[in-house]
This record gives sequence, C-alpha cells and structure tokens, in this order.
Amino acid sequence: MLVVMKHSALAQQVDAVCSRIESLGLRAHVLPGAARIAVAITGNRGPVEQHGLADMPGVQEVIRVTKQYKLVSRDFKDEPTVIHFPGSDATIGGPELAIIAGPCSVESRDQLFAVAEAVANSGARFLRGGAYKPRTSPYSFQGMGEEALVLLAEVREAFGLRIVTEAIDHESLALVEQYADMIQIGARNMQNFSLLKRAGRSPLPVLLKRGMSATLEELLMAAEYIMSEGNANVVLCERGIRTFVDHTRNTLDLSIVPAVHHLSHLPILVDPSHGTGKRYKVLPMARAAVAAGCDGLMVEVHAHPQEALSDGEQSILPDQFRKLMEEARAIAHIVGRQIAAPLPADAEAIAAR
Amino acid sequence: MLVVMKHSALAQQVDAVCSRIESLGLRAHVLPGAARIAVAITGNRGPVEQHGLADMPGVQEVIRVTKQYKLVSRDFKDEPTVIHFPGSDATIGGPELAIIAGPCSVESRDQLFAVAEAVANSGARFLRGGAYKPRTSPYSFQGMGEEALVLLAEVREAFGLRIVTEAIDHESLALVEQYADMIQIGARNMQNFSLLKRAGRSPLPVLLKRGMSATLEELLMAAEYIMSEGNANVVLCERGIRTFVDHTRNTLDLSIVPAVHHLSHLPILVDPSHGTGKRYKVLPMARAAVAAGCDGLMVEVHAHPQEALSDGEQSILPDQFRKLMEEARAIAHIVGRQIAAPLPADAEAIAAR
Amino acid sequence: MLVVMKHSALAQQVDAVCSRIESLGLRAHVLPGAARIAVAITGNRGPVEQHGLADMPGVQEVIRVTKQYKLVSRDFKDEPTVIHFPGSDATIGGPELAIIAGPCSVESRDQLFAVAEAVANSGARFLRGGAYKPRTSPYSFQGMGEEALVLLAEVREAFGLRIVTEAIDHESLALVEQYADMIQIGARNMQNFSLLKRAGRSPLPVLLKRGMSATLEELLMAAEYIMSEGNANVVLCERGIRTFVDHTRNTLDLSIVPAVHHLSHLPILVDPSHGTGKRYKVLPMARAAVAAGCDGLMVEVHAHPQEALSDGEQSILPDQFRKLMEEARAIAHIVGRQIAAPLPADAEAIAAR
Amino acid sequence: MLVVMKHSALAQQVDAVCSRIESLGLRAHVLPGAARIAVAITGNRGPVEQHGLADMPGVQEVIRVTKQYKLVSRDFKDEPTVIHFPGSDATIGGPELAIIAGPCSVESRDQLFAVAEAVANSGARFLRGGAYKPRTSPYSFQGMGEEALVLLAEVREAFGLRIVTEAIDHESLALVEQYADMIQIGARNMQNFSLLKRAGRSPLPVLLKRGMSATLEELLMAAEYIMSEGNANVVLCERGIRTFVDHTRNTLDLSIVPAVHHLSHLPILVDPSHGTGKRYKVLPMARAAVAAGCDGLMVEVHAHPQEALSDGEQSILPDQFRKLMEEARAIAHIVGRQIAAPLPADAEAIAAR
Repeated sequence: MLVVMKHSALAQQVDAVCSRIESLGLRAHVLPGAARIAVAITGNRGPVEQHGLADMPGVQEVIRVTKQYKLVSRDFKDEPTVIHFPGSDATIGGPELAIIAGPCSVESRDQLFAVAEAVANSGARFLRGGAYKPRTSPYSFQGMGEEALVLLAEVREAFGLRIVTEAIDHESLALVEQYADMIQIGARNMQNFSLLKRAGRSPLPVLLKRGMSATLEELLMAAEYIMSEGNANVVLCERGIRTFVDHTRNTLDLSIVPAVHHLSHLPILVDPSHGTGKRYKVLPMARAAVAAGCDGLMVEVHAHPQEALSDGEQSILPDQFRKLMEEARAIAHIVGRQIAAPLPADAEAIAAR
Repeated sequence: MLVVMKHSALAQQVDAVCSRIESLGLRAHVLPGAARIAVAITGNRGPVEQHGLADMPGVQEVIRVTKQYKLVSRDFKDEPTVIHFPGSDATIGGPELAIIAGPCSVESRDQLFAVAEAVANSGARFLRGGAYKPRTSPYSFQGMGEEALVLLAEVREAFGLRIVTEAIDHESLALVEQYADMIQIGARNMQNFSLLKRAGRSPLPVLLKRGMSATLEELLMAAEYIMSEGNANVVLCERGIRTFVDHTRNTLDLSIVPAVHHLSHLPILVDPSHGTGKRYKVLPMARAAVAAGCDGLMVEVHAHPQEALSDGEQSILPDQFRKLMEEARAIAHIVGRQIAAPLPADAEAIAAR
Repeated sequence: MLVVMKHSALAQQVDAVCSRIESLGLRAHVLPGAARIAVAITGNRGPVEQHGLADMPGVQEVIRVTKQYKLVSRDFKDEPTVIHFPGSDATIGGPELAIIAGPCSVESRDQLFAVAEAVANSGARFLRGGAYKPRTSPYSFQGMGEEALVLLAEVREAFGLRIVTEAIDHESLALVEQYADMIQIGARNMQNFSLLKRAGRSPLPVLLKRGMSATLEELLMAAEYIMSEGNANVVLCERGIRTFVDHTRNTLDLSIVPAVHHLSHLPILVDPSHGTGKRYKVLPMARAAVAAGCDGLMVEVHAHPQEALSDGEQSILPDQFRKLMEEARAIAHIVGRQIAAPLPADAEAIAAR
Repeated sequence: MLVVMKHSALAQQVDAVCSRIESLGLRAHVLPGAARIAVAITGNRGPVEQHGLADMPGVQEVIRVTKQYKLVSRDFKDEPTVIHFPGSDATIGGPELAIIAGPCSVESRDQLFAVAEAVANSGARFLRGGAYKPRTSPYSFQGMGEEALVLLAEVREAFGLRIVTEAIDHESLALVEQYADMIQIGARNMQNFSLLKRAGRSPLPVLLKRGMSATLEELLMAAEYIMSEGNANVVLCERGIRTFVDHTRNTLDLSIVPAVHHLSHLPILVDPSHGTGKRYKVLPMARAAVAAGCDGLMVEVHAHPQEALSDGEQSILPDQFRKLMEEARAIAHIVGRQIAAPLPADAEAIAAR
C-alpha cells in the first residue's frame, strides 16, 4: 500500500504517517519524488486495512497496490534511480552509460593491472574482477579470495576505477564491503534470499544479476528483497537465460531492457560476455544492448584469454574492448545517452591506427 | 562433399566433373564464387567415395564436409548472398538493409493503401501483408486469400514496393508466385518439408522464418531443403523463440545474427514485431537488431492497430515506423550499412515536426 | 456457443435448432451424449448473439463458451471419445490401452514382417511404420513412399494389425487413406493447418502428435481444426517437448496426460521412444506413462536397431518390447485399465524363459 | 583420477596410496566397494600426472576420469548408496521406497500433528515441514523458524517419523542439524556452493533438490560439492523444471530417474507436488514416478489446503495421500521395490471404506 502525500505536506505530517504505520506493526518507507513524497507500507501478510491513514493531515490518497513488488515499482517512484559513487564522476542510471569491464577472475597482480589500464584508458569507470567464483565443479579454480580484493583496492588507487566484485555468502560479503565500491550478487544466488537480505543492510550499492531461469517478476522481487531491508541502490543486470538454443552459451534476452524501464525505476545493465559465451558475439551484442536502451554494460576483458583460469572463451582482448567502446559511444549518442571519452593515452592509440 | 575447382579451370572441366557426379547417381550443384568455382555433391546417404574426382582435370581439391548442411554453408560460398529484385533497386544481403513493412493481414483496400503509402514514403522498399494466415484457432480470421493478393499487386504498381507474402501450402504458393515478389514460409511451416521443396522449385526468392523452437542447425537445414531443389535465393528471418519468459510473447534471439553470418552466406533479417509481441518493445528491438548486424527488418505497421483482425498489439503506427526508420538509418551507418532515404513526402513531414 | 437440448427433446427440435444456426451463417455440430444432446456453434468471429435460440422448443439452455476450443472440450462432450476400428477388436479411448508399435521407417519386407510378428504376438493391436519421413536434412533417408504403404497393407492381412502411418502433405495423405487405418500427423506438422483441415475431411481417425514447443491449448486447437471439418476421431499423442535439458533428446511431459483428461474428451497416447531418444529410458517411461493414466503407447521396435535407417538409438528390441508389454499390463491393471493378452506364441516364449 | 586397488590389497597399502596422493597436494577419498577398494583423487586443477601411483604395491590400475564428477559417479562406486537412519527402520536407496510427506510449512502444533498422524498411519517413515521458507516475495510468510524445528522434533518423538527440513543459510543449517534427521537444500540454493560445502561438513544426510534450470550434470556436480567435503549421504530429488509449458507450474522431468541411475550410485526421489503445482496431478505423477523407478517420493499433505500459508494449491488431503500410498505400493511391487505397510489404524480406515 502506498500513502501519497500532498504537494504541500509538511515533514512532520510525513513523520506522523510513518509513526501510525509502525504502530500497526508494519514498516514505512519514505520515497521522496520530484513533485511529491510517498510512503510505502510493507510487512503486511495480506491486504492492509486503511486504519484511517487517508484522513490524516497532509495525505492526498492511499493507493492499494496489486503487484507483488512495491519499492522497485514505477508506481512508487517514477524518476529513474541514479546511483552516485563518492569521490568519482561515476554514476549508474543517469545520462552516462555505466561501463564495467575487467577479467572474469582476478588471477595475479600483473594480469589485473594490464587489463585495468586498458579499461581505464578506453573511458570505462568501473572495473570488474572475481575474488570469489561460484563454479559448477568443486575442482575448478574458486578464486583468490581476500588476496584478490587487496589487488582490486590497489587498482582503484592506481587508476581511479570503481570496483565491482561478487560476494557469495555472508563472510565474503563482509570482506567485499571493506574493499570494493559495489557488491555483485551472481545469477546463481539471485534467489539466495538470506544473502539478498544481508546485501540490503549494506551501505554499498548492489549489482543484481538475473538468474538463469528467472522471470522479470522474480528479478524485480529479488531486488525488492534488497530494497525492503533499506538499501535503495540496486542495479539489475541481464546476463542471458537458459533455453533450448545451442549456438550460444545463454540466450541474451535484450527485450527485458524496455520491459524493466516500463515497470521499474531501477537501472538495468547488460552482460554480453556471459550472455553469449563466445568472443565473436560480444561486440555485436554489446552494440545491440546499447541500442535497446540499457543503462550500461558489463564486459569481460582479458589480455591473454587463452590462459584465463575461467571464462576465457568469452573474454575479449583489450583492442576489441577499445573498438567496442567506440561503437557503443556512437550508438549511445543516437539513443540520447553518452559514454565517457577515452583518456588521452587511448585516444592517441586510436589516432595512431 | 565439395569439389573445389582450380582458379584456371575451364567451363568444360566443370561440366565433366558434374557429369561424373551425376553418373554416380548423385546431384551436382555448381557454386560460382568470386575467385573459384566449387561443385557441391548432394544425394549421398553416407560418406561418398571420391571415385577419382580429385584426379580429374581442373580439380584443385575434394573436401569432405562433416556438417550436415552444405549449400547454405560458408565453406561452399564465402561471399554473402545478395538477392536482386528485377525492375527495382531493392536488394537483400547487400550494403543496404532490406526493410519489409506492412500490416499483419491484408484486411481491405483502404487499410492496405494507407499503410503502403506510409511505408514507401519512409524509405522501405518491401511491403508485407498476409493473404493466408496460419492461426492457432480455426475460428480466427484466416486471411482474404487471392483477393488480398490482387490488392497487393495493385500496391506494387502504385508505390513501386516489392511484395512479400506468406504461402501455407502448395495451392497458395502457386498463387503467391503469380502475384508477389517473394514467398514467405512462416515459422509454423519451417519444417513442412513438402512445402520447402516446392518453394525450392519456385523462381521467386524465399523468406524463411525460424520455427519457434528451431535450433540454428535446423534453420540452416530447412534452408538447405530449399536450396537443394535449385533455389539459391533464400533469406532467413529471426522472429523470436519460445522460452519460459513471460514478459514478452516470444524471446528475440538476436545473437543468432552473428552466428548465421559465421556459418552461412545467407542474409538474415529480424522481425521485432513477432519477436516481442508488444508495441512498446518494437522500436528498441529494431534498433538492437540493426546494431547486431542484421541484413534487414520485417515490421508490422497498421494505421489503426486496435481494429486489426490479427496481431494488433504488436503493430506500430505509421508515425512510430517513421521514427524507427530514422533511428535504424543512423545505427546502420555506424555498423557500415545503409538504409534508403525517405521519399520527399516523408522528409517534409519530418521537417515539419 | 453451445445449445444444450432437453433430455426429452425430439429429433425434429434438434433439426430446427441446427437450421436456425445455419441460417445465421454459422455451423452447427450435433454432439450426442449419453443423457442429452448438445449443438455446438462454430464459425462465429466474435461473441454470438443468441438470436432467440434459448426460446426454441426443446432447448434447455444456451451456454457461452469462453475457451477458444469447443469441439474438443469436456464442456461439449463429457464422456471420453472411444474410437472403434471396423473388422477388429482394436479401440482407442476405451478400457483397453491402445498399443502401437513398429519400426520408425519401413525399410524392407523382411524388416517389417519380423517386427510385425513380434508386435502382434505380444498383444499389441496396431503397427506403426513410416512411409514418408520428415527428416531434418534433405540428404537423409526420406522413406520408401507408396512401396512402404503396400507392405504395410500386406502386414494387416498377415497379422490382423491395424496400420498407423504418417502423412506429410495432401498427396501422401490421399495415399495413406487408401492403405492404412489411421493417419498420423507428425509433431513438425502439428500447426500445418492446411494439412489438418485435409485430415479433418478424411474418413479415417487421426493421430495428432504434439509439436515440439506446443502448449496444451495449441495442441487442443490443432485437434479443433480437424474436428471442425467434421472428423470427430482424433487421438492426441505426447512425444516430448524441447527444453534446455540435455540428458534426453526431448523432455517427456507426462503431466499433460491428466491435464488433457481434465479439459478434453479426446484420448491421449504417449510415445516414450521420441519422448526420450534413448533405448534405456523407453521401458521406464512407458511404465510411467501407463501409471499416469494414458490411453495407450506408441513405441519404436526394431529387430536390428543398429542398422536402422532412422532413429535406431531409441528403438527397442522385440524382447525388450515383450517385457514392456508385461510390465505395462500389470500397471494398467492397477489404474483400472487393461492391455490385451499376448498371443499363444508369445506366451510360450515367456513361459520358456 | 581413480586408483583401483587389487582385491587382495592390504589396508596399509591403501594408506600408502593415500599418503602419496596427499603429499602431492591433492586429496584422497577412500571408496570401499563390495569387491574392491578404490581411491579417488580430487583437488587437481587439470590432468594429474600419475607420479608412479600405478607402480605402488596393491594397486591394480589407475583410471583417468574424463567426466567432471567423480565421487557421485558409478565409475567410482557401482553399488547403489543406501542411507540408514539410526534408531529407525527408515532407509533411502534400498529396496524400500522412501516416502517423505507433510505440509509445505509448519504453521502450528495442531496443523503439524494432524498431518503427521495421517502420514505415519499410511506407512510413510519421513515427515517434511518447512521452518525456513525461501519465498519469491519478501512480504510472504517466511516460516516459523526455530519454533517450527521444536515442533518437528516433538513429532519425531510422538510418531517415530524421521524429520526432513530445509536449511537456507549457515545459521539455519546449524539449527536444522540440532533438531532434524536430514537437511534439505532447496531448488533455489542448488548452486549456493557455500551452503553446499557447509552441508558437506554435516553429520546428517542431505536431500538436494534439482534447480529449476539445472542440467543433470549440474545436479551431479552440486552433489559432488557436498561429497567432496566428506559427506557421502546425499539424496537427489527431481521437483520439476522451468519450460515454456503453462498447463503446469513446473515440468516434471521423470526421465532423469533412469538417467541418474545410469550415471550415479546416489538415490533419486521425485516431488510430484512442486513438480506439477496442481492437486489433481499429484496422484497420477506420483504413480508415474514410482513406475519410472525412483527411490522415493516427497509429497505435500495438508488437512486444510485452502488455509495453507504456502503452496495450498498443490497439497493433497490426508485421504488422497492414503490412496496415493496404496497405488504407489502396488506399482512398487511391479518394479521390484516395496513400500512399508500402513499402520493398523490406517488399515482399519481403509477396510471401513
């Protein structure tokens, strides 16, 4: 249920509404908008009686919400959510597309710094790199753990990139919080509700990847788990779904991009690397994602993909990433968005070609 | 099996190879290329013995093909297939993207002409419109039949558009051949092999839509059925596949575009109307398809979609189509392709906005 | 719309209702039931006005049907459809399960007779065997055509088996009608509406296999196409659907069996051979199908599967088929059904083990 | 890699092999079989050099394993795994089918005891009941937590049933270990590798449900995660997968039952309640599962399903469960298995009908 306040409502009237809601054993979430404040009510098992809320001072109307999701919905907050990263020009959800690039796994200092430099030079503002890897086999490389987090933090200092890295349980999440700028929840954990609730109590923004067989509603409900714990900074990410199709590792469902924008105020990124699983498809699908209107890309880049400890087949080379950025930048312009310019180092490299 | 001729091979040497192949009870298909001629052998139940082919004059090498498809493959013909339409600048597979637009079904003369004018003005060179409609229910509108074909032929005269329309059996195919410029085989008939063989004996090019649960290999094999009967002018079309996803009517599998180009010389179009089933997704996904590198679009346009006898929900309005063309044209430019300019009538309309 | 007649309605009152319906440009289908007669109305594009039907003599009530299917529905005919085969004890839909077995393709007289004898001895009353084969590749064995039909007709004489074989277009359907007892429409043609309509005008019963990505509603609507042309003898067949699963060729959706019985009066068989694609799964899934309540089985049997020209991997041996029949017979008994006893020849063979 | 010991190998020879393996930085797992002992090696990143293992005393051969799973494989342990429950006749994997029944969620003492009595009387030896519920929405009932575990432990005392209940994170797993007899890992957590590893260090057997889009290999690899931590008592459970099909909540993939038995020694149960989502399908699919050869059933039973706080639509009534047990018992007999007889209380009730 949503209590919509009048344009002229006073702060103390909003407080009074919240108090009433909490006195009923429910939770109140204040949602400030450009033109009005709304108060969302959660915690009810079934339909909520209005309990006189509509008659309180400053209240314009009380809206019964029939969809299962609330906080993620455009009904509650119409303007797109824009996430800012302190001490940086990086944003997600604003006019500039967020580009997150880097290796699947952090493997060594040399590997990470080589990729990070290429990523930073080409205009991306975020570095990805796995420290904790959820692998199908217990005998596959499981990530370097905290050692990788330390290296990622060094990269932030060296190149000014914001760090996005995955947490796989409460323990790793606590460590990621110490070292990184954004917590990634992977596709396999999209319905690990215990982990989602923990991420919802973190001060860091959360990148939530769509599960392999998640419907749009399930993805939004997973985001709702995070938001219902108090963390409003959630970013969704399409990374391909599982279908009968065998020419591709996963089937990238790009049409979820306009569908998310239709229903929710949250930003949605696209990962064409996991979304296709094949290097030669990453560039075309990255372009397609930007053309479809996504809020950013997440791309795997590796200087020596054939030696990568994970996902080498889908990692592109730094030169291919540079080309991807140029093409994505041009298409972004056509759909009314932008991508940061390459740094002088990279611009020179392009000019020299 | 493929017999690759030398660069210097004489026509009579090619003929001799073909005769030898046919004397073995097999079929020979001459495949002219820019640099070499190859002769494909079909009709073998299992591996073919070489029977001295490699030693014949003019033969460079004999290649055993392990993939099930032959004629559709890049191994046999490396240059992209470009289809020309006599008496028209229209092409499919060349640098210019083919835009096929129009109503799902032909419903009346007025309806058809209104849409055709808008389609022609915006720069598209092909009109679509169903005369025979494969509908899930026997009680749904099944198309106007030959009456619709007559109207489509009138439209060709009036606006210079090439006509693409669906055939659903041998009888309707014979009629479509009389009136139209290109035969469409719908998704539900992609493995109607009797119909594919008949289309393979037609002088008209064939637009083959991907079946709802067809793999890439099955799509290529369906094209192989048409080509193996002698019709080399086949165009593939992605129109969405069936998955668990419920936010969309079908899941548009755009990553098949680079995959087709990887394996085959045939052009591939994308149908964002059936591919999404929702009007608000048609524009973003049309842009995405062009960005992914497709060879053209097939789009449903209707002046009064709410009154359409079929698929109104996914048909866009003429004004939305005009916008689609502008955006697609700009993106085509970025990926090294082009779309014909709007006619003066339309250019004026745009300027007046 | 359905016009339900009174228990006491006279034949001439039913005739009058039909005449009225036809005078409205619609079609009337008389549906005799054990306790009442109903008249189904089809041919309406949208909701039908009642036009005074409810007030005619002998009419009890007029029911508006909201589902898209009519003739296939339990709303129109509550008793299960039972199909009889003239000159034979064979039935489909009654208390006895229909067992249809035989080779994927007819390959030779010897091959066919060897299998037919084993099939007949084990108690099955129907022989399957393909004369026209829809194959993914144009270069695969496409069936022996009419020559196979002649052999199948010989088998009927020799062993008293009813013959079920597939038609793939109008031409082959006309031939199948001459030689066989039941026309099979394959999965790839489930939405070949032109072929369905032709089958609907045949005097023979039709076995309709579920398409690889067909929903239950689409399967019922395909049966409705056949019934709406006047052929009431339609039998459905589950043969596996296409999913992401890779341990099996198709995913056998057994839960469609109770779902069909819930909505429709038509019988439903199960094909565990195509439904799994692997010999070792055929027996367990045949047992499971009978336990789930299906009306019969369709099973591929071959005396030398490793030499089969098609589908050898999923064909079971005559001995395995004998075991399948014993186990299926025992389970049928538990769910209140039965399977005919083996012939003495086979009973002896079992006793001798 | 697997080191197969000679029939005559001495215990100290086995120890020596293990020591050598561990000295190489790898892990050794002793796998006792009826006829031979084998030692599995895990922990290798790539192929393992043999390092002279084949020449050690008592070693018969060293087998290179190409499949990704090892400990779960029939290559390592050919006899089926049978799990015993101390202080009880209950087993999983032996000749007797394991029947686990009870409510989706524990809701109250009365609700639980009513169901438990019916379950126990009908011959089932295991009670299920959720204390921690992974729900799509954060606003749905999330389970009673430890309070439910206390009630479940009471039920064990009262009716002698073994308790199976789900853990969703490390915290709840520690509590489940205190109160229950078997830890359930739900479908959404099948690839929560952190939780799988924790379960692998538990002394209790683990029931591992297949993820909604998990392949057979992924399911086996998830079991391998548990086994590689030292817990050999893993039971798999098919509960339906996600497909395009809409007549059912999930598509029950029964053919995985013979496929698991083909590849693995682990028992596999079937959950026809989640597997179909509809009450009227539970009985037919339970029968089908037993006929397919499963090692047991997991069924939701509720005395008042319309009042259930979760999954009421798929819960059957105690009377329906009694009928399910009778039919399953009869079919089990046909496939060479058995189900425990009902208690006198229930036998009387049946007789009285």
